[in-house]
Amino acid sequence: MIIAVDAAGGDHYPENPVKGSIQALNDRDDLTIILVGPEDSVNSELSNYEYDQERLLVEDAPEVIGMDESPARAVKTKQNSSIVKGLGMHKAGKCAGFVSAGNTGALLAASTFLLGKLEGVSRPTIAAVYPTVKGVRLMLDVGANLEVRPEMFLQFARMGEIFTREIMDIDDPQVGLLNIGEEPEKGTDTLKEAFTELKSLPNFVGNVEGRDIFDAGADVFLCDALVGNVLLKFGESIPAALKKFIKSGIEKLELGPQEAKAVQKVLKVSLSEFDADRIGGVPFLGVDGVSMVGHGSSSPLAVKNMILNAVKCVDHDINEKIVASLK
Amino acid sequence: MIIAVDAAGGDHYPENPVKGSIQALNDRDDLTIILVGPEDSVNSELSNYEYDQERLLVEDAPEVIGMDESPARAVKTKQNSSIVKGLGMHKAGKCAGFVSAGNTGALLAASTFLLGKLEGVSRPTIAAVYPTVKGVRLMLDVGANLEVRPEMFLQFARMGEIFTREIMDIDDPQVGLLNIGEEPEKGTDTLKEAFTELKSLPNFVGNVEGRDIFDAGADVFLCDALVGNVLLKFGESIPAALKKFIKSGIEKLELGPQEAKAVQKVLKVSLSEFDADRIGGVPFLGVDGVSMVGHGSSSPLAVKNMILNAVKCVDHDINEKIVASLK
Repeated sequence: MIIAVDAAGGDHYPENPVKGSIQALNDRDDLTIILVGPEDSVNSELSNYEYDQERLLVEDAPEVIGMDESPARAVKTKQNSSIVKGLGMHKAGKCAGFVSAGNTGALLAASTFLLGKLEGVSRPTIAAVYPTVKGVRLMLDVGANLEVRPEMFLQFARMGEIFTREIMDIDDPQVGLLNIGEEPEKGTDTLKEAFTELKSLPNFVGNVEGRDIFDAGADVFLCDALVGNVLLKFGESIPAALKKFIKSGIEKLELGPQEAKAVQKVLKVSLSEFDADRIGGVPFLGVDGVSMVGHGSSSPLAVKNMILNAVKCVDHDINEKIVASLK
Repeated sequence: MIIAVDAAGGDHYPENPVKGSIQALNDRDDLTIILVGPEDSVNSELSNYEYDQERLLVEDAPEVIGMDESPARAVKTKQNSSIVKGLGMHKAGKCAGFVSAGNTGALLAASTFLLGKLEGVSRPTIAAVYPTVKGVRLMLDVGANLEVRPEMFLQFARMGEIFTREIMDIDDPQVGLLNIGEEPEKGTDTLKEAFTELKSLPNFVGNVEGRDIFDAGADVFLCDALVGNVLLKFGESIPAALKKFIKSGIEKLELGPQEAKAVQKVLKVSLSEFDADRIGGVPFLGVDGVSMVGHGSSSPLAVKNMILNAVKCVDHDINEKIVASLK
């Protein structure tokens, strides 16, 4: 299988995409990777490592889309960027998927525009994995659709259900609608109508509340992109904030250095569920292809895991299953 | 000053409202409290304590509004409930404020209906205090308005600013609009228009994101009730979830009992910012009176702090300041 990797995306390119790609190749013998990015700098980075040259190719894409660039304009004007070229290669069948830690908005726009939507999907969506006390769960939408129509929630539910079962290995995933209360009559008109639509799913657990997230009151949490994006970024800030809370606790209790060290060690291990690198990235669900996006700060491990998740999406025929489920 | 206290509200009545009232009386000599609730059970509870009988009175309100009752119907049909009677007494000038740990929806409906709105306020709002690494900050709306028009965000900003300065003792409070990105063009049409309205405030810091909450990127976080309510309940779930995360960390590291105890002690102290009891309650901002609501699980300490916050709202002429600010 061939996967294209954005070698000009994220905060640490080309180093992290290159390192992560080599790690992924070491993990899977049947994998070939095409690094898409400015040829010179990618080759210069590659010269630092030993790797199987037959399975790691470079495709020149001299233009770079910055992390803060306006997505629509960047995609339109930078035809020789790694994002536009990589997704174009995917569309042309030259690779089975594309992964990137680059500009999420540009990736969403280019994925939707170049790959098109799956049959039965109104709008592609960005999902995120969220830490819970029972392991990570899925939340969507976290960035693509600020306004979600009731039938779109139903599509999100089906796509999320397939992704959690096939890729996150959660048996019989339960779907919940994030709302201000559990009763069916709670929330906006849109949420009330969505509740009615979702009732047709056998695995819909009803409305869930903010307090149900950490307890994994559902395996797939449905929300609009405003709620999801605020929650996602809030969740990402928890480890750093907790370190500060714990530090002030250690000072208040005037703990000795050895005890303080034990506390910090426990904290580090305890918060490993929050480690985005372990997860790698998440796909744009609903596009006609496999397009994964990772955090801008993605480490080599994150890039590697993103590549392996893309492989899994292909192996498990995610998109065929989504189309069948939406029929 | 006379404050009426709902003796039939919350999960632990009449015990906690009675205990909290007695604690508040011990704190302030100039305070008189009227406990509003079923006379027999309130008096029976009171017989367990010593207190200044001249400053602690009982007003019979035999009907009880349950925590899960439909707010509008409960307020309409239960004229002899503590909520309707207590707010009626406040409206009639028999007390300077009303505090309750009861049914939030019923309290909002009764406060809006019986007390009326302040001049210049489109819709009353429920605010909540939120823990940050710099101490608690204010978030609104967290339960009253699922749909917030742009001019309402401006009203929320002014009300929140006055509350944080006068009651939470935050000098020069900064206002932020919770959004999916920092740029003015981010978010729904409503949020974009709200941004434009809010620019007229000298202390508006612009759009803030989920990651800015714990870092106190603003002192007043503005949002609609869907975002606010999900965040509020998610925040309330953090301490319990962390205890589970930390417990699994302790097990993974196979810590001895003494080290494990030290870790748990630090955790408890570190999470004291999350302790709702310390804060007591929050007011319905925008109603023509002082009506405070606390968590259903409010302890005696929470009730006491809620009463003292109500006193502070009266002492600081909160509502006069809000009306002046909205002119």
